[in-house]
Amino acid sequence: MTILTGGSAIDVHTHIYPERYVALLRARESVPRIATRGGMERILILPGEDADGSTAAGRPIGSEYWDCERKLAFMDRHGIAVSLVSPANPWLDFCSVSEAGPIATLINESMEEFAAGSGGRIYGMGLLPRDPALAAAELARIAALPHLRGATIGSTGAGQGLDDPTMGTVWAAAERTGQMIFVHPHYGVGNDHMRGYGHGMALALGFPFETTTAITRLILSGAFDRFPGLKIMVAHAGGVLPYLAGRLDACVAGDASVCLKQRPSEYLRMMYFDAISYQVPTLQLLISLVGAERIMFGTDHPFFPPAVANAELDATEWHSPAAHRRILAAVGEETASAILRGNAAATFGLTLPER
Amino acid sequence: MTILTGGSAIDVHTHIYPERYVALLRARESVPRIATRGGMERILILPGEDADGSTAAGRPIGSEYWDCERKLAFMDRHGIAVSLVSPANPWLDFCSVSEAGPIATLINESMEEFAAGSGGRIYGMGLLPRDPALAAAELARIAALPHLRGATIGSTGAGQGLDDPTMGTVWAAAERTGQMIFVHPHYGVGNDHMRGYGHGMALALGFPFETTTAITRLILSGAFDRFPGLKIMVAHAGGVLPYLAGRLDACVAGDASVCLKQRPSEYLRMMYFDAISYQVPTLQLLISLVGAERIMFGTDHPFFPPAVANAELDATEWHSPAAHRRILAAVGEETASAILRGNAAATFGLTLPER
Repeated sequence: MTILTGGSAIDVHTHIYPERYVALLRARESVPRIATRGGMERILILPGEDADGSTAAGRPIGSEYWDCERKLAFMDRHGIAVSLVSPANPWLDFCSVSEAGPIATLINESMEEFAAGSGGRIYGMGLLPRDPALAAAELARIAALPHLRGATIGSTGAGQGLDDPTMGTVWAAAERTGQMIFVHPHYGVGNDHMRGYGHGMALALGFPFETTTAITRLILSGAFDRFPGLKIMVAHAGGVLPYLAGRLDACVAGDASVCLKQRPSEYLRMMYFDAISYQVPTLQLLISLVGAERIMFGTDHPFFPPAVANAELDATEWHSPAAHRRILAAVGEETASAILRGNAAATFGLTLPER
Repeated sequence: MTILTGGSAIDVHTHIYPERYVALLRARESVPRIATRGGMERILILPGEDADGSTAAGRPIGSEYWDCERKLAFMDRHGIAVSLVSPANPWLDFCSVSEAGPIATLINESMEEFAAGSGGRIYGMGLLPRDPALAAAELARIAALPHLRGATIGSTGAGQGLDDPTMGTVWAAAERTGQMIFVHPHYGVGNDHMRGYGHGMALALGFPFETTTAITRLILSGAFDRFPGLKIMVAHAGGVLPYLAGRLDACVAGDASVCLKQRPSEYLRMMYFDAISYQVPTLQLLISLVGAERIMFGTDHPFFPPAVANAELDATEWHSPAAHRRILAAVGEETASAILRGNAAATFGLTLPER
């Protein structure tokens, strides 16, 4: 079945750390930063990770995070024709206002160069400085770069959450320029409840809790009423808001502080989602709630690598792409095909390379 | 269609504050407590609610929370033949070890009396002191009371979470006595992210986040491997763990600190769930993941009352029971009937009254 083995998938959730960004992290002395431990580079991005001076702190980082050839090798190995790569967290959240603007411009140029050098296989998303006016200006620059399609942001936006009134400047610019905003977790929500079991609970629960909180605030702020053309893509199958949407409707019904044109759940149908669901019933719920045309295949590469030596990574099957293709095979050929490639090509205006 | 209008539903998630518990809360001077403000009683149960001295702090509380006749009126109004009432949060989490044991015994006797005086329409769940040994003893007493079926507990168990090794004493007692443990949220998770929009985000998101964290810890601790006969009922359609189950599997795969006989998601099929899903796709996911036979109708009464004067409450249609019956009507007559009554009757050994 081509859903399982075909070579024309489009991956809308796949990351790189551009080399300029890697250099920035190597030069830093506090989290987030890249440190050499036991002769290997490790990336420390979570609060407190720096306190652990052991060789197990953070996660190993190698050229699979920035080398175009290795991204293409992963794509070839997993039947991915085109990738829309985005800079991974924590973006520029740690930069001062004065430095973030110029750095964002440089990194976005790096993303464009990375994509332009891929022989038509890769498009990119940019990142934004936190200052809303600077972010709006950067979105205009991104819109003018031929291989870029939108930008990724964290859950806190300019620092106070996606419902902060100052974010209106960013939403207006995104709507005006037609650029997709990819909302992605980084900080976790409920971290003090995630102790133990390695990083499992923080990644499995804290990340989707964060995404859910962020897009709930975005909805409740009325952003989609004011900017109906706003295009938001939500990471990891929407966090968990798709499961809770009806409960959210019930919990804010009649609350005078929530003034929306529709029930909160209805705004989910104005957003876009990756299909990183990890199980068939979750993908089915998402399809049922928002429509298959809003959902696009993603892998989260190069996170969650298989447990092999770095030198063997490119030749090894990774869990995520294989699992998400198997899940797609359960929702019917036409729907699966749309999620695997058609929706992304149409939504982002991507061209599939000749095969 | 009888699913929408029939009179033989069984409600497994419906609360009372027994009068002895109300007296306890009235006598307290710090949260949780019942205070009189503007001539009306209000219950203050969340941290910080006490700091607000206004007449809008907490929520109004009246005899719908403790009067058997009013519970029966609600049941009659909404086609509910039998209710399994449970004490509402925060149970005895605020009591010292020395006082909690005797109070639990008294309150559980109150629950038995409440149920016994209902003419066969009401069964009850008990509550437990936090000390595991005392809780185990109380479970044995509950098992001997003819109208009680199990006990409700909060997400923190004895204080350190449901994966605390000391909780093994409680799980062993629950397994030995065959008593259901109903895991219900109270504290919220991610509260510092829930500001604004009334209590909407805390209830819609923070509560299910808390439930999810609690049952995830329970699963990861291996409790179901050690106590395979343990019966756990999870509030509000399982929080959000049903949506995230596959992601949890992926995030702990290969983690040396997680030693289970099955993948974490598979333990969900060993639990029970209420059907408080608020939307059809959520109930469908739950059915798909755990099987319809594990799911039972619930209303959460008397929380989320309609916006009418207290005197009109008993004659007014409430949102939750009506909404959850409409949702059931979408999953097929046989499945809906099982969720509406058959599963609860079988799981809890309840007798439906003659009509």
